[in-house]
Amino acid sequence: MAILIKNGRVITADSDSICDILTEGETIAAIGRNLPAPADAQVIDATGKLVLPGGIDPHVHLDMPFMGTFSSDTHETGTRAALHGGTTTVIDFVLQKQGHSLREALTEWQGRATGTAVGDYSFHMAVTDFNPGTREEIKDMVAEGITSFKTFMAYKGALMIDDAQMVGLMQEVRKHGGLVTAHATNGDLIDTLIAQHRAAGQLTPRYHYLSQPEVTEAEASGRFADIANYTGVNAYIVHLTCEGALNQVRRATERNQRVFVETCIQYLLLDASLYGEDFEGAKWVMSPPLREPKDQATLWAGINQGLVQVVGTDHCPFRWEQKQMGRDDFSKIPNGHPAIEHRMELLFSEGVMKGRISPQRFVEVTSTNAAKIFGMFPRKGTISIGADADLVLIDPKKKHTISAATHHMNVDYSAYEGHELTGKITTVLLRGQVAVDAGETKVGRGYGQFIKRGKVSF
Amino acid sequence: MAILIKNGRVITADSDSICDILTEGETIAAIGRNLPAPADAQVIDATGKLVLPGGIDPHVHLDMPFMGTFSSDTHETGTRAALHGGTTTVIDFVLQKQGHSLREALTEWQGRATGTAVGDYSFHMAVTDFNPGTREEIKDMVAEGITSFKTFMAYKGALMIDDAQMVGLMQEVRKHGGLVTAHATNGDLIDTLIAQHRAAGQLTPRYHYLSQPEVTEAEASGRFADIANYTGVNAYIVHLTCEGALNQVRRATERNQRVFVETCIQYLLLDASLYGEDFEGAKWVMSPPLREPKDQATLWAGINQGLVQVVGTDHCPFRWEQKQMGRDDFSKIPNGHPAIEHRMELLFSEGVMKGRISPQRFVEVTSTNAAKIFGMFPRKGTISIGADADLVLIDPKKKHTISAATHHMNVDYSAYEGHELTGKITTVLLRGQVAVDAGETKVGRGYGQFIKRGKVSF
Amino acid sequence: MAILIKNGRVITADSDSICDILTEGETIAAIGRNLPAPADAQVIDATGKLVLPGGIDPHVHLDMPFMGTFSSDTHETGTRAALHGGTTTVIDFVLQKQGHSLREALTEWQGRATGTAVGDYSFHMAVTDFNPGTREEIKDMVAEGITSFKTFMAYKGALMIDDAQMVGLMQEVRKHGGLVTAHATNGDLIDTLIAQHRAAGQLTPRYHYLSQPEVTEAEASGRFADIANYTGVNAYIVHLTCEGALNQVRRATERNQRVFVETCIQYLLLDASLYGEDFEGAKWVMSPPLREPKDQATLWAGINQGLVQVVGTDHCPFRWEQKQMGRDDFSKIPNGHPAIEHRMELLFSEGVMKGRISPQRFVEVTSTNAAKIFGMFPRKGTISIGADADLVLIDPKKKHTISAATHHMNVDYSAYEGHELTGKITTVLLRGQVAVDAGETKVGRGYGQFIKRGKVSF
Amino acid sequence: MAILIKNGRVITADSDSICDILTEGETIAAIGRNLPAPADAQVIDATGKLVLPGGIDPHVHLDMPFMGTFSSDTHETGTRAALHGGTTTVIDFVLQKQGHSLREALTEWQGRATGTAVGDYSFHMAVTDFNPGTREEIKDMVAEGITSFKTFMAYKGALMIDDAQMVGLMQEVRKHGGLVTAHATNGDLIDTLIAQHRAAGQLTPRYHYLSQPEVTEAEASGRFADIANYTGVNAYIVHLTCEGALNQVRRATERNQRVFVETCIQYLLLDASLYGEDFEGAKWVMSPPLREPKDQATLWAGINQGLVQVVGTDHCPFRWEQKQMGRDDFSKIPNGHPAIEHRMELLFSEGVMKGRISPQRFVEVTSTNAAKIFGMFPRKGTISIGADADLVLIDPKKKHTISAATHHMNVDYSAYEGHELTGKITTVLLRGQVAVDAGETKVGRGYGQFIKRGKVSF
Repeated sequence: MAILIKNGRVITADSDSICDILTEGETIAAIGRNLPAPADAQVIDATGKLVLPGGIDPHVHLDMPFMGTFSSDTHETGTRAALHGGTTTVIDFVLQKQGHSLREALTEWQGRATGTAVGDYSFHMAVTDFNPGTREEIKDMVAEGITSFKTFMAYKGALMIDDAQMVGLMQEVRKHGGLVTAHATNGDLIDTLIAQHRAAGQLTPRYHYLSQPEVTEAEASGRFADIANYTGVNAYIVHLTCEGALNQVRRATERNQRVFVETCIQYLLLDASLYGEDFEGAKWVMSPPLREPKDQATLWAGINQGLVQVVGTDHCPFRWEQKQMGRDDFSKIPNGHPAIEHRMELLFSEGVMKGRISPQRFVEVTSTNAAKIFGMFPRKGTISIGADADLVLIDPKKKHTISAATHHMNVDYSAYEGHELTGKITTVLLRGQVAVDAGETKVGRGYGQFIKRGKVSF
Repeated sequence: MAILIKNGRVITADSDSICDILTEGETIAAIGRNLPAPADAQVIDATGKLVLPGGIDPHVHLDMPFMGTFSSDTHETGTRAALHGGTTTVIDFVLQKQGHSLREALTEWQGRATGTAVGDYSFHMAVTDFNPGTREEIKDMVAEGITSFKTFMAYKGALMIDDAQMVGLMQEVRKHGGLVTAHATNGDLIDTLIAQHRAAGQLTPRYHYLSQPEVTEAEASGRFADIANYTGVNAYIVHLTCEGALNQVRRATERNQRVFVETCIQYLLLDASLYGEDFEGAKWVMSPPLREPKDQATLWAGINQGLVQVVGTDHCPFRWEQKQMGRDDFSKIPNGHPAIEHRMELLFSEGVMKGRISPQRFVEVTSTNAAKIFGMFPRKGTISIGADADLVLIDPKKKHTISAATHHMNVDYSAYEGHELTGKITTVLLRGQVAVDAGETKVGRGYGQFIKRGKVSF
Repeated sequence: MAILIKNGRVITADSDSICDILTEGETIAAIGRNLPAPADAQVIDATGKLVLPGGIDPHVHLDMPFMGTFSSDTHETGTRAALHGGTTTVIDFVLQKQGHSLREALTEWQGRATGTAVGDYSFHMAVTDFNPGTREEIKDMVAEGITSFKTFMAYKGALMIDDAQMVGLMQEVRKHGGLVTAHATNGDLIDTLIAQHRAAGQLTPRYHYLSQPEVTEAEASGRFADIANYTGVNAYIVHLTCEGALNQVRRATERNQRVFVETCIQYLLLDASLYGEDFEGAKWVMSPPLREPKDQATLWAGINQGLVQVVGTDHCPFRWEQKQMGRDDFSKIPNGHPAIEHRMELLFSEGVMKGRISPQRFVEVTSTNAAKIFGMFPRKGTISIGADADLVLIDPKKKHTISAATHHMNVDYSAYEGHELTGKITTVLLRGQVAVDAGETKVGRGYGQFIKRGKVSF
Repeated sequence: MAILIKNGRVITADSDSICDILTEGETIAAIGRNLPAPADAQVIDATGKLVLPGGIDPHVHLDMPFMGTFSSDTHETGTRAALHGGTTTVIDFVLQKQGHSLREALTEWQGRATGTAVGDYSFHMAVTDFNPGTREEIKDMVAEGITSFKTFMAYKGALMIDDAQMVGLMQEVRKHGGLVTAHATNGDLIDTLIAQHRAAGQLTPRYHYLSQPEVTEAEASGRFADIANYTGVNAYIVHLTCEGALNQVRRATERNQRVFVETCIQYLLLDASLYGEDFEGAKWVMSPPLREPKDQATLWAGINQGLVQVVGTDHCPFRWEQKQMGRDDFSKIPNGHPAIEHRMELLFSEGVMKGRISPQRFVEVTSTNAAKIFGMFPRKGTISIGADADLVLIDPKKKHTISAATHHMNVDYSAYEGHELTGKITTVLLRGQVAVDAGETKVGRGYGQFIKRGKVSF
């Protein structure tokens, strides 16, 4: 089975040309001018469209047990929604339970994802209990193709590891050529501020935001970088949101260190003014919270400086009913929001079409860099011969409006309800199959494959 | 006329795959698995070889009048040597004469380059006298495809402009979407130290080095970044050599500024221990001079941090006889050294083969980034459909030794005599023609074309 | 002749006690509880008052030729006004004329100051033309007790020296144990912006302010620190006004450098909102101009961090009629404003009484630190045995209002007209004489002495 | 009872004069030229000597239970030794036991100190368990005159508090105008490295040093500053040793924060080369350990920059026999070394006599600054009327050699055995009594008083 995409403007991190792309089986077989269509080939006319590498969202939480409930998108609904938004591969987080092994957690997650995902996926392993037993399992996980190890510097008693565990984990991961990532916020500080607000009867969603001031993230980001520098491990900060945190990374460059940085689309586009007086703000209760305009400016600059390599989502949706768990107490609002579907269209519209970033930079931060950092390159993240035929066609001028009424995520509100965007994804291929076309899903439950990952190459 | 390159390992900034490349006329027509050879096509077997985008060296001085003589490589010999080393495009510097117009200088340089260059070339315009007349010419130069404007913060009375001229130039260049580059060293300080060494009878080449301590570069780099930030112009520091200077750029990131940085291959690989007690050090008398091992570490880190985007050469050779002009006084040694030919093999051997940088990073810093920054993308700097078929085949395991006896530059010594490298360039294509093969030049004087350039896209 | 000051609360940089002070002749003879009054002693009851060391203002311009006129306070009127405000010693600037010797300038200034000053004074030597001849004079000036050498990085063609002269001067001054001070703003940038505003018909005083944005000071402060660090000379930045500039000094601490910093009272208390649409703003046309509230916050913090050691005035008054020279063109407004008289009362009221700084810090920044840095310690700057009996009595709770109608400076407007202060100076002693009491001057023209100065001791 | 000290060269932080000092009772009554001797006065001829304020050592551990033993100097022997070295006041650390109240700890320490101390003393309260009960006690401690609260960021399970406790403590202390101090090293990291060395059989004292690399201190210093900045509390880092840590404080200045810094005499004068292959290094097993020459350079610079305000000792001696507890395992060596006696002579000899710091700076860092920061000013830390007559006479040219054979500390080795110093303390007064003279103690057990302290005034 082959597909010939004709006359699109093909854009990758290092190219921009009008040409044809021929897929054979799951991969790309040829790129060229006036490629002949094989006998059995489906031909897609991409005239006037951009053709981009399928997006990679390295930060999603699907079907995840959290705060007494589960994030509302399963691996099926979540990856399906991702595909509609041009994201062909996601990396989901396996969460070790404290007191249990990494393997147990992996098995549990595999149980939920295998055979259900519609789009491709991989796993980060979140190490929440680093001990001699866990240490032994690191190399096994690497052998499984799980080469990135997530740490939480917050959520004490549930997910957080302390600095002793951090340094031990980093040393072990480094030995096996892996990567350590961090939710870099100071859990102790946050827990204190939460308790203080609760004690003072300050219970609306706005106090979620006020419990995580910039210092909580800046401090932990600096600490994470410090320890990583000491151990020499490859380090990556997830969902970095603010100037204070990015400045820690910038300063770390002065000692010749490289710390990878991921921000998320919401931190570029939304700000804390959404946390008003009422419960509406619960829609954007996530950690870290939305920040200020000056932080948005920092993040856009960071992308163009090459210091922010990845734009993810931290997709972790909860239905409005689930959010009600915290109606009387912000600390009980399940943290997270829906984003997996619109990351690429949002960044294309607000970034590329508004001239903030180049089309090449767009590809880098939505796809190529994640592939390189997370060891999926050159299979994913690019349009090249032999690479997976993960392709996104976008009509760059078409306007459309985001709404929960039309989105594919399993959640009954949108974080961007009513936002009008320029640039609409029309067709998406995943491993040589049309996965989405004209708003319809063309591949089914279980089409998505687990992607084994290797080492950082960046 | 077509060429089919079979079975090479094609590496670009965002790909790595075994495939074929078909050129038609001057450009790339197809990339794919088992591409059929057109009837008239020349077929090149690239099995076991890497195929890379042709190199771009954005910092060369060919046939340049300087210090009472001319750099010894003409546009013919220099670009020919470049081709042998896989560099298919160079950007040469036109130097305005103080008191004269930019146009006059351009005409003079065109006179030397047109019809003589063997490889492709473009021009930076070095503005040495910014005045109301010069201001008027900026847009003309941009219209000519000369979109980068070089400034010298040193060489007072000859090339240097003061900060008043700098700010004025930046404002004007910004208006036309261009880029300002700088030789960022403090000429006043350097001139003072030179005078002091001469007055003290300290006249050997080592005092050239001692007249340009790190502060002279760090200070000027900071000043250049400051003024650029004020004006908002795209800014680029040429031949950055040291920690102090890169730290100025790193600190500038904290105010959300992006300053592009070029280093040169010699600053990564050679150090100041080459300046000994005798005249031998004259071989490496260049400005800035070679630095210390800690600076090399900084530059390698800077590349991997994405903060050093380009590795050039500042190729400016003088024959040993010319260097004798300063036998009795280091300040009369023509500044510069030969490097145009070996940049890519040196960086491949010492960078890629030794694991300091990835193959993709290699392509970025030798080619793609320069193409993007200097407005030649996507025509140059990549392997994609419609791009110029500028291709380099390299045998990655073949060892060879650098020597003046075998090099193609018009200079009778080598800066790397006896250095053994791993990885040998075997074939080079320029715009769809085999330009070099098995050590022989296959294109002639005048084959090289002037490349009009556009705006920064990075 | 002796004076016994009884029961004051004596405050110095390192003390705070209720006691008596006995002067004998010009100096302090005893400090103690219940000191017996010598027979001939005048007794001053200081009950309820603070007794502080006489202030030192190390930045004043008296009777100075500038921009085609002279600053309107002579050494007589200026030092008299200073005494009324508790400043017993000032350091005035001798300005070398370019093309002339330091000695000539000194002789000229001595001609104006000798026999006319009412309060004590010393001189800085402003080196505006550093050449071999000037170099020879440095040691002579040090021998004269003029150990601080002022440089201008602005006012090209009149006062500015370039970096070559700067490094040479620093090397020479270091050899003789002196101090180099700088008006650290980038003259080239400022001149360009001035010219642009004038060309655009933007001629009101507000454009004076807009011609000297923060970068012009930050850049030059960094450059001055860089060169000073290279030479190892003692360095001091005069009238530092802004965050960007202080951050350069803060960053220099990371390389173990110490750069002394002086701010002026107006930069702590006034801001750029005074530059309105009309000509009124001419009252505050000075260089650097007033800045923003965030800069005020930086300066107050800098004082408490110990990184801003001195609060001076840059007193350089021009009568309103003189200011008219620039009615149609801000660049012709004589730069400067009247401040010598109210520095101490302003800082006492706004700093000490409002709790921003401790009384000890007040003494340090108005007196002791200047004495130490400028080589007048322990003769000046403190209340100790053998020190000059320069004493200021202040009624800490007395309120009063600043007005040109009542001030003693020879200028017909006040920069603080109508400001109400808490804390009024009631009596001032200079070298054992009551110089001011109850608003009346008690010493005459010529009472002031030239103070020879030695090396930095800080 | 009165004492008249004649003709000394009296040096304080802001004075330097030859004069007499008269004490009456416990305080200073007069300072002057040729003061008449009261009838009953003892007269001390100080001709040729310096007279300085009594030293304050704000960091000592007397009779402290630690690591299964007690530091070997009691409040009696320790303060007596301190007096011999010119230190008239010490601040000792009360250690809350986790699970117990501050009051209990205070009572315990009072039990050991009251009636035994020979020199004056005060207490810091080390909060090792911050909880709602502890929170209530803060104001009580402030009422007791204990206004500084020590925290340990290391020694988990024994002394360490986490960041949640830190922020809570800081908020409470700020409310009452107190000061929070920190042993700022990352305990988690250190514990991990210790465990790794032990597991690897690396058991000599050198591994103590290797378990506390610079990052462990730099990280925690930054974190402490971050949290302090958030709360707005007065913050002070104890025993800061290295460039990385001081740079955190320097960078904090850029956000207008002031963090007080104490280093200790050993970090200025000794370095890690003392940790050799054998057990001898146990003499200098302390936390943090000795560092590198580059760190010494940083600390000397920090003093002169005003960013290191205090030089203490962290005196915590253990007899050689006690040190043997760790003969087979460095982690069991009681941490600490003897220093209380020689701080002032060491700093005088190596700092003042070698020209690294001025005599005034010497007084500041050994006495005045501690008095101001710790709320004992102006009673302590200066020579002024009404201040405690705590005075030190030093013969500035007299050479002597440090040895355990002659020192007064209750420990059988010296950290400086054989060091020859210039400048010998000859006489010490404490509250108007000769406490030490010609090597003999003149006051007895119990003479020392507890000094109630107030708020920071700096």
